[in-house]
Amino acid sequence: MKTHVCIIGAGPAGLLLGHLLRAEGVDCVVLERRSPDYVLSRIRAGVLENVTVGLMERLGLDGRMKAEGLWHDGFNLADGERLIRIDIGELVGNRVMVYGQTEVTRDLMEASAERDLQVVYEADDVALHDLESDTPYVTYTKDGAEHRVDCRFIVGCDGFHGPSRKSIPASVGQEFERVYPFGWLGILADVPPCNHELIYANHERGFALASMRSETRSRYYIDVPLTEKVENWPDERLWDELATRLGPEAAAHITRGPSIDKSIAPLRSFVFAPMRHGSLMLCGDSAHIVPPTGAKGLNLAASDVYYASAALTGFFNRQDNDAISAYSDTALARVWKSERFSWSLTRLMHRFPEDGPFERAMQVAELDYIASSRAAQTSIAENYVGLPV
Amino acid sequence: MKTHVCIIGAGPAGLLLGHLLRAEGVDCVVLERRSPDYVLSRIRAGVLENVTVGLMERLGLDGRMKAEGLWHDGFNLADGERLIRIDIGELVGNRVMVYGQTEVTRDLMEASAERDLQVVYEADDVALHDLESDTPYVTYTKDGAEHRVDCRFIVGCDGFHGPSRKSIPASVGQEFERVYPFGWLGILADVPPCNHELIYANHERGFALASMRSETRSRYYIDVPLTEKVENWPDERLWDELATRLGPEAAAHITRGPSIDKSIAPLRSFVFAPMRHGSLMLCGDSAHIVPPTGAKGLNLAASDVYYASAALTGFFNRQDNDAISAYSDTALARVWKSERFSWSLTRLMHRFPEDGPFERAMQVAELDYIASSRAAQTSIAENYVGLPV
Repeated sequence: MKTHVCIIGAGPAGLLLGHLLRAEGVDCVVLERRSPDYVLSRIRAGVLENVTVGLMERLGLDGRMKAEGLWHDGFNLADGERLIRIDIGELVGNRVMVYGQTEVTRDLMEASAERDLQVVYEADDVALHDLESDTPYVTYTKDGAEHRVDCRFIVGCDGFHGPSRKSIPASVGQEFERVYPFGWLGILADVPPCNHELIYANHERGFALASMRSETRSRYYIDVPLTEKVENWPDERLWDELATRLGPEAAAHITRGPSIDKSIAPLRSFVFAPMRHGSLMLCGDSAHIVPPTGAKGLNLAASDVYYASAALTGFFNRQDNDAISAYSDTALARVWKSERFSWSLTRLMHRFPEDGPFERAMQVAELDYIASSRAAQTSIAENYVGLPV
Repeated sequence: MKTHVCIIGAGPAGLLLGHLLRAEGVDCVVLERRSPDYVLSRIRAGVLENVTVGLMERLGLDGRMKAEGLWHDGFNLADGERLIRIDIGELVGNRVMVYGQTEVTRDLMEASAERDLQVVYEADDVALHDLESDTPYVTYTKDGAEHRVDCRFIVGCDGFHGPSRKSIPASVGQEFERVYPFGWLGILADVPPCNHELIYANHERGFALASMRSETRSRYYIDVPLTEKVENWPDERLWDELATRLGPEAAAHITRGPSIDKSIAPLRSFVFAPMRHGSLMLCGDSAHIVPPTGAKGLNLAASDVYYASAALTGFFNRQDNDAISAYSDTALARVWKSERFSWSLTRLMHRFPEDGPFERAMQVAELDYIASSRAAQTSIAENYVGLPV
């Protein structure tokens, strides 16, 4: 098979990029190791920045999102005693869209056939070749047969564990990493949310987040030690803990229900630089991971895709190589700012085992300062809705 | 001797409080362990917030400060490549006064005689007694004789090492402390400053600060390991290091000259709470220490004095006990915010031995974000000029 761009990974980043390239007449193929059902079964974040919403709008795939998604013009920080509302609408004249990543993926997946976006699912043993040449290619196996895709560019949208980043020689790149000493235990349940906006809480017992996917589906989290097991958290124990950590105001409105999903995810900050090596470009989790605090993961993938699609369409439609050359620096400039925000919000809202009374007092002081300062709230709000691309 | 208020310590906090009380007709005595010359020989910070300037104005002791001091409406953060100017005038409509702490002390000291503020210098073996009663007293020795001051309140303005805080039973208070893994090596020289505003630099070789006391007296700092000795830093080596760390733009304007003073000071964050125990109130360094980054030390002492003088004049002139009762909470609310700012600016501008590449990248990202965000700059500016009392 021969194409312009071979995209590895059919998660939201890969599908979004594929649609954007197809819309500009750039040939591409998407290879995905898993089945469509498996891809849709992954539960992920659900707060979309303008950049992400804007790309769905540009593709004309925003219909269901606009009908079923929830616009939020604020969110809350809780310190055990009070809610500090960050009024993003008033502070920065903007808002975010609450719409599950799974739903974004579904919308992109369902549009593939009618838009002639070729996605090969269950493509196994994906391997990248000749990245430093202008004629790279990708091999994979499917149903026992070997396949090869020849292309001009490969884009790795295959996540942290995918083969793309690992195909770059170790001597070429640098890894930046921070592993956090806790994970998030999440519960998904078909119950109305306790608050119409998100609540991030730093309680003396630990972190909690009240989030949602819709007006009838709630998503809650608490932080737990990395050694914790899901089996230790029957639903009732988790609801009790959430009620405590979110504080009395939120707890009064929690509706309990059976968990649809309950799992523990580790928290990690990770950046690989550069984000391009020869004919390979990296987008999203293949190049960087943020802790979920602040919901930047999908949105950062979307801004990478925004830059990558512009660079690739410029290359194929206008023989412009500059944006390809600049891709890594352009994307990383925004990546680092989102990494900073995710790291600092994680730092502010979690209890770290290494923190003593002074560091704990600094968290209290920072929340007090935020509660009293329009400038501090504006800074948080502009990061939360997403810095400009 | 009998008086209303016995103030321990004749540094700027103690003298400021003494003058404010005398101006309202409240009897007081200030006891100081050292001689006037010794007090004036201590080299300290030199950036005054509005609250500090305002108290000098209220006392009518702002004449020399207004004539000789320098109004600054901005300062700079440097990241090795560029200067990021924080335009505090434009951002928050405010400014700070560059005027040495030594000069503030001198102005207050010289006004003591004419304003009938009694200051006992070289008062040794100061001890505080019966703090939990309404009839506390202070004993000291001078010229071999024992003395006793009976009073209604004692105010500890005697710094971190003074006897006041140590007179509070350990069971009553809580200490919050962070010791930093480096100190500041400072040089004072009679040369024009390299820039008309301050420059805080985070260079790969470490921290540097270009500051000043006047248009002809410069104060520079670099951070050094706590084990470093001043003897290892002849003037020329220090000037070379400053030129490197401050970056080419500043280095081009550095005027070198012989050091008048060269010393290493450790950096510490410290808070003791509560700030009142019975009839003893604490002001300034006796209750809290900030690292010098951001120049909050003297200004925080001034805001404590602002609250303490209001509480004490209310008590003696209007039989109002409420502000005395509220003093600790009122003062601490502002203390914690200044501690937070000093800690976060220290964190941003220094290389910490425990930091890895990710944490270093977060510093770079934060400086990049600050350079691009009006909200972030406004937040820094409002803290730099001092949050409202």
